[in-house]
Amino acid sequence: MSHNAGLRAPAQPGDPVAAIDTPALVIDLDAMARNLAAMAAFASERGFRLRPHAKTHKSAAIAKLQMAAGAVGVCVQKLSEAEVLAEHGVPDIYISNEIVDEAKLARVAALAGRIRLAIAVDSRTGIDRLAAALKAAGTRADVFVEIDVGQGRCGTSPAAAGELALRVLSNGLHFAGLQAYHGGAQHLRSSAERQVAIEHAAALVRTALANLAEAGIQCPLVTGAGTGTFALEAASGVWGELQCGSYVFMDRDYADNHLAGSAPGMGQVAFEHALFVKSQVMSVGAAHAVVDAGHKSHAIDSGMPGVWQGGFEFRNGGDEHGILSPVTQADGRTAALPAIGDTVWLIPGHCDPTVNLHDRYIGVRGGLAHGVVESTWAVDARGCLT
Amino acid sequence: MSHNAGLRAPAQPGDPVAAIDTPALVIDLDAMARNLAAMAAFASERGFRLRPHAKTHKSAAIAKLQMAAGAVGVCVQKLSEAEVLAEHGVPDIYISNEIVDEAKLARVAALAGRIRLAIAVDSRTGIDRLAAALKAAGTRADVFVEIDVGQGRCGTSPAAAGELALRVLSNGLHFAGLQAYHGGAQHLRSSAERQVAIEHAAALVRTALANLAEAGIQCPLVTGAGTGTFALEAASGVWGELQCGSYVFMDRDYADNHLAGSAPGMGQVAFEHALFVKSQVMSVGAAHAVVDAGHKSHAIDSGMPGVWQGGFEFRNGGDEHGILSPVTQADGRTAALPAIGDTVWLIPGHCDPTVNLHDRYIGVRGGLAHGVVESTWAVDARGCLT
Repeated sequence: MSHNAGLRAPAQPGDPVAAIDTPALVIDLDAMARNLAAMAAFASERGFRLRPHAKTHKSAAIAKLQMAAGAVGVCVQKLSEAEVLAEHGVPDIYISNEIVDEAKLARVAALAGRIRLAIAVDSRTGIDRLAAALKAAGTRADVFVEIDVGQGRCGTSPAAAGELALRVLSNGLHFAGLQAYHGGAQHLRSSAERQVAIEHAAALVRTALANLAEAGIQCPLVTGAGTGTFALEAASGVWGELQCGSYVFMDRDYADNHLAGSAPGMGQVAFEHALFVKSQVMSVGAAHAVVDAGHKSHAIDSGMPGVWQGGFEFRNGGDEHGILSPVTQADGRTAALPAIGDTVWLIPGHCDPTVNLHDRYIGVRGGLAHGVVESTWAVDARGCLT
Repeated sequence: MSHNAGLRAPAQPGDPVAAIDTPALVIDLDAMARNLAAMAAFASERGFRLRPHAKTHKSAAIAKLQMAAGAVGVCVQKLSEAEVLAEHGVPDIYISNEIVDEAKLARVAALAGRIRLAIAVDSRTGIDRLAAALKAAGTRADVFVEIDVGQGRCGTSPAAAGELALRVLSNGLHFAGLQAYHGGAQHLRSSAERQVAIEHAAALVRTALANLAEAGIQCPLVTGAGTGTFALEAASGVWGELQCGSYVFMDRDYADNHLAGSAPGMGQVAFEHALFVKSQVMSVGAAHAVVDAGHKSHAIDSGMPGVWQGGFEFRNGGDEHGILSPVTQADGRTAALPAIGDTVWLIPGHCDPTVNLHDRYIGVRGGLAHGVVESTWAVDARGCLT
């Protein structure tokens, strides 16, 4: 649905990599397949439900690959993402976020009549409005109570979990469990820091579970975790469902984490970079080169993109430009500047908002150097903000 | 062309402001009209050509308003932006940027057969390839030689201007003048810093002009300048055309500049905030509130958005959330937290990449508080990266 008639696709199936117009969002399909398999194996071998976050890829095609590999469904953050993915055949979606607007809640209730739908709540107002909307539509949804486990964003305090779950139940809704995601912990660099953060989060979940038990309410499931910490949540014994999203692509920022995907007793899961922005050198100065990709092509909220070939630092050149400067290598050498027209592969600092800048994924089989374009998937939920 | 069939517009003409779905990109049409008139008056009263940068708004509707107010045409940074705006009836476009890819240059040459087109060059390779493409298509374009006037990005050194202009001419192309834009100067906070930067840029332009004169080449026009410095370029005596873009909307970052739009002998031109992201409070904690707009709704390359109502600091809450904390006012008071469902108007830190995140402008007449939706323009060239 995100195809813009005025925008030509940067490539067609069968094109060689060299023919992909720039800047373009390119998936190394072989690397992505290995990432999908590695996460699916981690979850299934250890008995966890896997519900990957589709806010990362916004693609029905990738959601279906994840479900084919064993995922129970996907998460999204926005109603409009859920609507678009549902329209493209994704049958089980969890909006892991609060919606409080009555017009939006009427759409939530309508969508709940078309697919299996879950949603998060963190306020009495939100619960009451959701209940009214579902009642008016005659539909049902799974309702998770979100608790704040350290992010300081949405979510109620663990001590209020029982009260809110009771309000869910007294409104005649289905209490599906706790939403407990610590976004801030994902990007802590050392494994020790991440371990401390998730131990703290787990303690808060246990407080919430105790609070629910005091209220006489059984908690069917605790859902959360991300690519930076999932092995820690898995090892904690409190989470039952993992929501990792970025593992499918891996961005520069996650790769900067030390020993991501590891936890005591959980082994080590490694993911590969599978998402790139193909750019082209458009200008060469005395000591720098300029590529045709700026922060309208890649998000910079988690820093500048990496340069896949190595040997260069990427500096911000504004909305439409990136500036490459050679860096001195360990052996004392410095790479020669590329020439006008040369290809430079960028590794996005943060995948999710980078994907949201593009209309299409160009899927390449056989590697970036000599591969061939296999697919040109739409980023179906690109721009789905509401 | 950027209408996504899967995305509903956040409002319809005639809707009250309260009915606009969130997050949404909202123009205060009255404020924008005053900005358009103020810049047009500045240019016409002082005899400058005005060619606003459409990279800011990516909208044929706004480009036409600018031309109706006296602009000679618009600038863009990307070929695909030019193609889409041309398709929507913009007749005179300058791609103020280098294009070196041969497949792209064939499209440039084709477009030059449909509208009046100009383009920048900064390399021998680029000039030769452009000439070959135009010759093959049998079309013509105005060619500007870009010189680096302090940004350290694209552009040749002023001392090479003559050589490149000669290559333009010897290839049978039309040398239209010099592209001289100092992007880095736009965001220097003090007027003294900006004055030093533009005096330096002007000196480099004069060097390039002398270099052209030595080569016996007349320079028809020097084009450049932005919203942060245009009065300084105008006062310098070397620029003949102004490319300001952000003045139409004004973002938080430009508003942070002291005495923008002023220069000795040029008076003072003031612009108003005309572009906003409408957001909604979705969660309220003990000392913060969370709105449903994160950096998928507004660009943060120039910092966080401002809060139009005042009294709150906006902190980054990730891709889909913003966190508001009350700040202590001058009178020692602190604003009360908003309630779930309340509207919060955000002033984007940087307009251009914020606009690129949205599919539609919701144009409001009569003010943000009690106005009515008048227009729902597509962001025509949204996502035009190539």
